[in-house]
Amino acid sequence: MNCSTITPTIVIHGGAWAIPESLLEASCVGVQNAARAGYQILVGEGGSALDAVQAAVRVLEDDPALDAGTGSVLNVAGDVEMDAIIMEGQHLKAGAVAGVKNIRNPINLARMVMDKTDHVMLVGEGANLFASKMGISQVPKEELVTQENIKAWEHYQNFKLTVEDLSSNGADNNNTYGHDTVGAVAVDIHGNVACATSTGGITAKMVGRVGDSPIIGCGAYCDNAVGAVSTTGHGESIMKVTLARDVLYNMQQGMSSQAAAEKSLDYMTERLAGAGGVVVVSNHGDIGYHFTTERMAWASAKDGILNYGINPKETLTGKLLTEAS
Amino acid sequence: MNCSTITPTIVIHGGAWAIPESLLEASCVGVQNAARAGYQILVGEGGSALDAVQAAVRVLEDDPALDAGTGSVLNVAGDVEMDAIIMEGQHLKAGAVAGVKNIRNPINLARMVMDKTDHVMLVGEGANLFASKMGISQVPKEELVTQENIKAWEHYQNFKLTVEDLSSNGADNNNTYGHDTVGAVAVDIHGNVACATSTGGITAKMVGRVGDSPIIGCGAYCDNAVGAVSTTGHGESIMKVTLARDVLYNMQQGMSSQAAAEKSLDYMTERLAGAGGVVVVSNHGDIGYHFTTERMAWASAKDGILNYGINPKETLTGKLLTEAS
Repeated sequence: MNCSTITPTIVIHGGAWAIPESLLEASCVGVQNAARAGYQILVGEGGSALDAVQAAVRVLEDDPALDAGTGSVLNVAGDVEMDAIIMEGQHLKAGAVAGVKNIRNPINLARMVMDKTDHVMLVGEGANLFASKMGISQVPKEELVTQENIKAWEHYQNFKLTVEDLSSNGADNNNTYGHDTVGAVAVDIHGNVACATSTGGITAKMVGRVGDSPIIGCGAYCDNAVGAVSTTGHGESIMKVTLARDVLYNMQQGMSSQAAAEKSLDYMTERLAGAGGVVVVSNHGDIGYHFTTERMAWASAKDGILNYGINPKETLTGKLLTEAS
Repeated sequence: MNCSTITPTIVIHGGAWAIPESLLEASCVGVQNAARAGYQILVGEGGSALDAVQAAVRVLEDDPALDAGTGSVLNVAGDVEMDAIIMEGQHLKAGAVAGVKNIRNPINLARMVMDKTDHVMLVGEGANLFASKMGISQVPKEELVTQENIKAWEHYQNFKLTVEDLSSNGADNNNTYGHDTVGAVAVDIHGNVACATSTGGITAKMVGRVGDSPIIGCGAYCDNAVGAVSTTGHGESIMKVTLARDVLYNMQQGMSSQAAAEKSLDYMTERLAGAGGVVVVSNHGDIGYHFTTERMAWASAKDGILNYGINPKETLTGKLLTEAS
């Protein structure tokens, strides 16, 4: 697909979970900021979907209210291990990192795996070794962690909760210690699609635990023949149904982005009682978003209009241009 | 599905690549041994597909002629980092490890991730930490490595080949330094399906590189509603098309195991010029296997008959019972 009739479109999520009242405002601001950053690249600069989703996710990673990059939650050992993936739909090229420590923007490292290696995924110490070779500076863990995330970890330590208790999965959707993942999908003027997802994971996860986010077909997938998907929610459930790939298969069967998003999440509920959310864009700019958790912060930018929301069936309109732009 | 009319079936692969003449005999013996071990559990003991694929892959891991467990290839730093996944189709439960070192049977550790944690995947040091907690003894790297694999690594060092040169992907199917992955799929008398895949990866891979093998939907996937798949070949290509999941989607559209295997591998060739192989079993015991590399060692056991092969369009018949059994 290579025609100029495609309307550049970007859709963002800031995680699907039981977002507490105290984080509603910050979450909505965060996803709108990311939508603006990505849309500026797509429209203002006529840039690629790939660059747009990377820029958007970088904004989300830098936002301490969201669980990715700065703002990542702590694993059971009190450490920060982060995961990210980026993918483009023309040649299906992808880059991912998992269990990486002490870097500010895992999405940038994932892009380097895609652009500068023969591989798709690097994990653990190997990912950090590659970051050093690429000249990415290390940051102390303390710079990535918020007071709120330390409190969530202490809560876990004090009450010996299990990871299942802490996740916003299934019955316990009111738990507010889950946190979860950020992501973006986009289509550019050339009809190229891209997706990106980044996360600090879930509080008190085991050392070395990798969820859906950096897993191709689970946390993200895209294909110029169909569209792009980024997912969020209970990572282990998302992996078991390869959620991102499943949404695109539904679209390949003729469904709209929205219908496909709803069908795949309903299937995850029926089969596994797993809750989550997705954002979707088709190769011609058809937007979809849906969540089966209590809340999901999302934002979209298309045709000069920025929409966003955080509660079910809620669509608000924001300003596409900030004072500064 | 829970009826007694299902014919217990297991299908094995020992890797799809340009297997040299010197390894033909050992590869064929290896996959037959694994098929016997798994089939014995399915029929002799009326056991589960899950136990059968784990036992079969353990036999393959212990075979030094095959690139998994003992016999794993060396990464660019001369180290052994192994990956494995196991999955069952009733509840879609799965366990995977990646970048794990110094253990003899990664598939056993993957099973423990599935059975004894809330997670699906553990990587790097965290995977080894979990192995220690489970009481799995560490083995020195030297016990996992063969002289042939050391020579392949030295060849890389001497000639400064790239990983692409070393893989049996695309144009260079005659290269014999690729090595590749083992796997098994099975259906038991209860109609439960399972799959397992294990690998040492590719010679001279970057430290921390994870290919398709431990990635759910790529190296393996199964669902009682359809069947089970294990894949092998150029890992990065397999990831980009989520090969295992793709085969099952084709079966969901009505294709036989064989037609689905061929369609998905043809798509990987057309889209990415990527070569590989798959073994498949449907939930009623319909067998499929196919490869687009020069060779793939495979074996199947069903209805008391053991078949195997290693060259295209070759089906030989082996002995299901060894002298000892």
